[in-house]
Amino acid sequence: MANPARDALHFPSHHAQQIDPYIPTLPATPTPTTKPHVTLTFATSLDSQLSLAPGIQTALSGPESKAMTHYLRSKHDAILIGVGTAVADNPSLNCRIEGVGGYGGEGLEGQPRPVVIDPKGRWTFSADSKVLKLAAEGKGRAPWVVAGLGRVDEERRGMLESLRGKVLEFDSSGSSISWSEILNRLVNDGVKSVMIEGGGGVINELLAPENVGLVDSVILTIAPVWLGKGGVQVCPDARVEDGQRLAVSRLKDVKWVPLGDDVVLCGHPRLA
Amino acid sequence: MANPARDALHFPSHHAQQIDPYIPTLPATPTPTTKPHVTLTFATSLDSQLSLAPGIQTALSGPESKAMTHYLRSKHDAILIGVGTAVADNPSLNCRIEGVGGYGGEGLEGQPRPVVIDPKGRWTFSADSKVLKLAAEGKGRAPWVVAGLGRVDEERRGMLESLRGKVLEFDSSGSSISWSEILNRLVNDGVKSVMIEGGGGVINELLAPENVGLVDSVILTIAPVWLGKGGVQVCPDARVEDGQRLAVSRLKDVKWVPLGDDVVLCGHPRLA
Repeated sequence: MANPARDALHFPSHHAQQIDPYIPTLPATPTPTTKPHVTLTFATSLDSQLSLAPGIQTALSGPESKAMTHYLRSKHDAILIGVGTAVADNPSLNCRIEGVGGYGGEGLEGQPRPVVIDPKGRWTFSADSKVLKLAAEGKGRAPWVVAGLGRVDEERRGMLESLRGKVLEFDSSGSSISWSEILNRLVNDGVKSVMIEGGGGVINELLAPENVGLVDSVILTIAPVWLGKGGVQVCPDARVEDGQRLAVSRLKDVKWVPLGDDVVLCGHPRLA
Repeated sequence: MANPARDALHFPSHHAQQIDPYIPTLPATPTPTTKPHVTLTFATSLDSQLSLAPGIQTALSGPESKAMTHYLRSKHDAILIGVGTAVADNPSLNCRIEGVGGYGGEGLEGQPRPVVIDPKGRWTFSADSKVLKLAAEGKGRAPWVVAGLGRVDEERRGMLESLRGKVLEFDSSGSSISWSEILNRLVNDGVKSVMIEGGGGVINELLAPENVGLVDSVILTIAPVWLGKGGVQVCPDARVEDGQRLAVSRLKDVKWVPLGDDVVLCGHPRLA
């Protein structure tokens, strides 16, 4: 093993031990058949917001939480985001925990596959996009882009494929592709576990009654700050049954892990 | 001391020890001059909601959290709510922790003074309202109602005064009374500490930049559930300075205390 890169992160094992029951442990986990293990993970303020406004990156959680995110990335085959986040944040989407490929480890070992959900082909990435640059440098994998048929042009498709990424095409007549279709395609392409990181639209869809059964674990960081009205909020659509409002979803097997000034909440989501 | 009443609650000392640094400790706390010690306390879902809809009481937190609320009530001279909560919930607003007056203790020892903020006199309480019945039974104090001049009719004023409650009248030309005025009046009437419990309107006002300096401690319970859109949300108005959005307020000296399936967050609020 080479020396760890200077920008590698470290997540202490006493913290990892608390989170581990909520993430897939390979190779003990049997190969899933209809969908990968799905871990939904994100960080919010006390008023359940991801950022101060759409398209603004807001530093919410502390350095311990950042190290945890990269630890989690090392434990999943893929990490998935929506196109809004890809466009707004120009994210790296690699794993920088010490010991993974590019950060002290061999090849691309421990580097998750970035997956971007982009039904309409809105993500106008280039060779300068961080995730593609890191792939070119051997510090991460090239992304898979989930898109409607013909929505990603030939030039960009070629750019992805030259770095060993690809387009996952769906023949969607509308503008959206169902989560069960996406997850089914991922598992068929060899992804046994996926960590879904955001943004707000993706998270709210997955917490909604019709999708929450697809999520195996939630690992949520909460920072002790109120952002105030107008930010990007995690709040799924209301659930109404027989004309009555009900809570949408609840976490079972709950563990709260204080981490710096933040707390990490782990649990298995169920219809409330 | 009489036997504890059968409906008395118990809050274990190992939990109390963690909360105690955030609440006023009498008589060590010097008598404040311009306002009481203010503890803001409430329970939300993960999507920062107090209830599924205005006027609906939503059971969010577990039994440990309920016992904590009553423990906190025993440690404050007064507990304060807005008129919306008084109207919607018909709350008891007394303290049922074992050992306080009416629950194993003498007289009204440890029973906080209920304070209802009702500028327009919307609270049409009667002798059947829970808080008044409990006062008549010696299991709690009669409320003080903060109202605009002449907003509480003579009959209700008499009802309060016969139980040793009263109206705190303010000559407010508009419909609202400022928080610094209210808190100043309370300390002048002998209230050295007040626990503010809700509802949404009151909490959002107190977390706003212009008022957050009045709050000494926040003790917030978070339950691992998402209620979904349309509930009563804790989310203060946005803070904009020099045309730029900023986080509104942040807790310092943070402690996260897991309590059953919930977590209790304690801290001292500051402008972010």
